Amino acid sequence: MHPFTAHASESVSSLGELRLIAAIRRWLGAATPPAPFGIGDDCAVLPPSRHPQLITVDPVVYGEHFDDTIPPRAVAAKLLKRNLSDIAAMGGRPRAAVVALALDPRVSTRWLEQFYRGLAGAARACKVPIAGGDITRQSGGLSATLTLIGEASGPRVLTRHGAKPDDWIYVTGLLGGSILGHHYRFEPRLAEGAWLAAQREVRSLMDLSDGLAKDLHALTPKGATPSLSRQSIPISAAARTLAKRDNRPALAHALSDGEDFELLFTVAARTDRTKFETSWRKKFSTRLTCIGRFTRTLEPDALNLGDFHGYEHLR
Amino acid sequence: MHPFTAHASESVSSLGELRLIAAIRRWLGAATPPAPFGIGDDCAVLPPSRHPQLITVDPVVYGEHFDDTIPPRAVAAKLLKRNLSDIAAMGGRPRAAVVALALDPRVSTRWLEQFYRGLAGAARACKVPIAGGDITRQSGGLSATLTLIGEASGPRVLTRHGAKPDDWIYVTGLLGGSILGHHYRFEPRLAEGAWLAAQREVRSLMDLSDGLAKDLHALTPKGATPSLSRQSIPISAAARTLAKRDNRPALAHALSDGEDFELLFTVAARTDRTKFETSWRKKFSTRLTCIGRFTRTLEPDALNLGDFHGYEHLR
Repeated sequence: MHPFTAHASESVSSLGELRLIAAIRRWLGAATPPAPFGIGDDCAVLPPSRHPQLITVDPVVYGEHFDDTIPPRAVAAKLLKRNLSDIAAMGGRPRAAVVALALDPRVSTRWLEQFYRGLAGAARACKVPIAGGDITRQSGGLSATLTLIGEASGPRVLTRHGAKPDDWIYVTGLLGGSILGHHYRFEPRLAEGAWLAAQREVRSLMDLSDGLAKDLHALTPKGATPSLSRQSIPISAAARTLAKRDNRPALAHALSDGEDFELLFTVAARTDRTKFETSWRKKFSTRLTCIGRFTRTLEPDALNLGDFHGYEHLR
Repeated sequence: MHPFTAHASESVSSLGELRLIAAIRRWLGAATPPAPFGIGDDCAVLPPSRHPQLITVDPVVYGEHFDDTIPPRAVAAKLLKRNLSDIAAMGGRPRAAVVALALDPRVSTRWLEQFYRGLAGAARACKVPIAGGDITRQSGGLSATLTLIGEASGPRVLTRHGAKPDDWIYVTGLLGGSILGHHYRFEPRLAEGAWLAAQREVRSLMDLSDGLAKDLHALTPKGATPSLSRQSIPISAAARTLAKRDNRPALAHALSDGEDFELLFTVAARTDRTKFETSWRKKFSTRLTCIGRFTRTLEPDALNLGDFHGYEHLR
C-alpha cells in the first residue's frame, strides 16, 4: 500500500492533531494501558525493575526499511520485532515500548490505521504494552522510531564480550535471503535468548542483523580468529533462490545478507556439546548449528570471512 | 549552519558506517559510558530502579524544529532538554538517553560533529549518560529522536490528573515569544519538578509545550473551568517584542505560543499560599505566579481561553 494520498480528505492532516491522537488510541486499543502507564501524560510510567534493565532503539524508514510492497501491518510488526530481537540478543524480556512517528501531512489515514493496528497486534502477541509516543511532522518523510525497554530475565545479562579462544560458535535458524520475506516475517528469539542467558557455558550472545561475515567480528576475542566450517553454515532456501537469480554462491548470501535476526552465540571450549544440544532440542524446535570455533590462527580448511562482506549502512 | 554538503568528501557517506560510529563515540566522549552501559552492544544496560520509572520520547526534525539559523550544538541541546522537561513535568530525575539518528548521506560531517559535541555537553551538564542509539539512512531527511528514561525522585509521580474544583493554578517563568530564542536556550525545570512532587498540596503537574491556552485543558478537572486573571499572566519580553511586530496583543502570544517549557501545576484549594510561595522562594529564584483557579463556572472578570488557540501540530 502506498502511504501517501493526493486527496486531502483521506490524509492525516484532515484529522488534525487531537482527533489523530484519539484515533491512534482507538487503533492501539488494549495494547496501550490507561495513563500514566500508557499514552496521555508527559511521560509513561513503568513500575520499578528488579533485574538490570535493557534499552534499545531502532527505526523503520520509508524507502529504506520498507516500501509500497510491504503491508503497513507488517511494517509495524517489523518495527517491534527488530527491537525485540535486540532484547533477545542480551537474554532479556521486553517490558514497554514507546513509538515516535514523523510523517508528512499527506500520509493517508488508512495507511496509518493499518500500521497502528499491526503494531497493536504484534504488541499483544508478545505482551509488550505501547506505553507512549510522539507524533511530529516531517515534510516528505515517513518514519517510526521505537524504543523498547526490557529487563534481564535473571541476574545475568549476556553481552557480546566473553568469548575466549577455542570457544564454540553457534547460530540459530537458517541464514541469507531475508529480503524475500523473512525480514518482516521472522520471529524474534526471545525464549531462546532468555534460556541461553541462564546457561553458564554460554559466554556471549548477539543477534544477526548485518550478516554473519560482518557481525561475527563483534564476538571474536583478541588473539583469535573464527574458523568456520564451510559445510556447516545453515543456508536458507531464500538464499538459494537469490543465488540462482544473481549467479552468486548461496553461501555468499548466507554470510553477507542482512536482517537474519537469528542468534549468534559462543559456548565455552570445555562444554559437553552433545548434552548442551540435547537440552536445547528438548526446549526448542528452532534449528541450532555449531558452525565452528575461535582458534589462534585460521585453520587450513576454514572459511575465509575476509572474502565476504556484510550489509553496509549509509552507502 | 546548513546541515548538507555538496562535497562528497565532507559528507558522512565518505566516512562509512564503522568510522562514523567510532567518530560519534569520540565526539560523545565521557557522555557515553563503556559498553554495555553505553554504545556498543545490542542493548544498553541500566541498573535496576527503586522508584517508578518514567519514559518519554521527542524528536527534532530539520525544517520543523530547527533550521540553518540554529547552531547544531543548540539543536542537540534542545533535543535533550525537550525530553528533560517531560521528566521534570512528572517530578522525576533523568537516568539515561538513547538517540536514533536518521540522515541523508549528504549531511556534513562537520554539522554532525557539532551536533554530537553539543549533545555531550548538554548530557554532562545534567548528568544523563547517552547510553546508546542507532544511525540510519533517510534520503533527503535529517532528524534525531531521543528517548529518555527517568525515575521518580521519590515514591510519588505527579501526573496531569488530580486537580479539583477551587484548586489554584500556578505557572513558572514567563510565557510567549519562545521562537525568538527561548525554544533552545531554556533550562528544564528539573529541580522545581522534583520539589513539587514532594509537596502534598501539589495535585497535578505538566510542562507547557503548546501554549497555556491549549495545555491547561489537560489539567482541568471535570465540572470545572479555569478562571484566570488577565493581569496575572506572566508575559515574556519576547512576547512583547513579537506583539509589536505583528500587531497582536502580547497576551495572545503568552497564551498561544508553543515551546515555553515552563511548569504548570495546581495546588489544593485549602493551601496556605503565602507559606507555599515563601518555601518556593527559599529554594528557587525561578519566578512563580498564581494565575487563577478552577471554578464551577467562569468568573465574570476571568480570561476566556476559548478566544485563544495553542500550537497545532500537523498543520
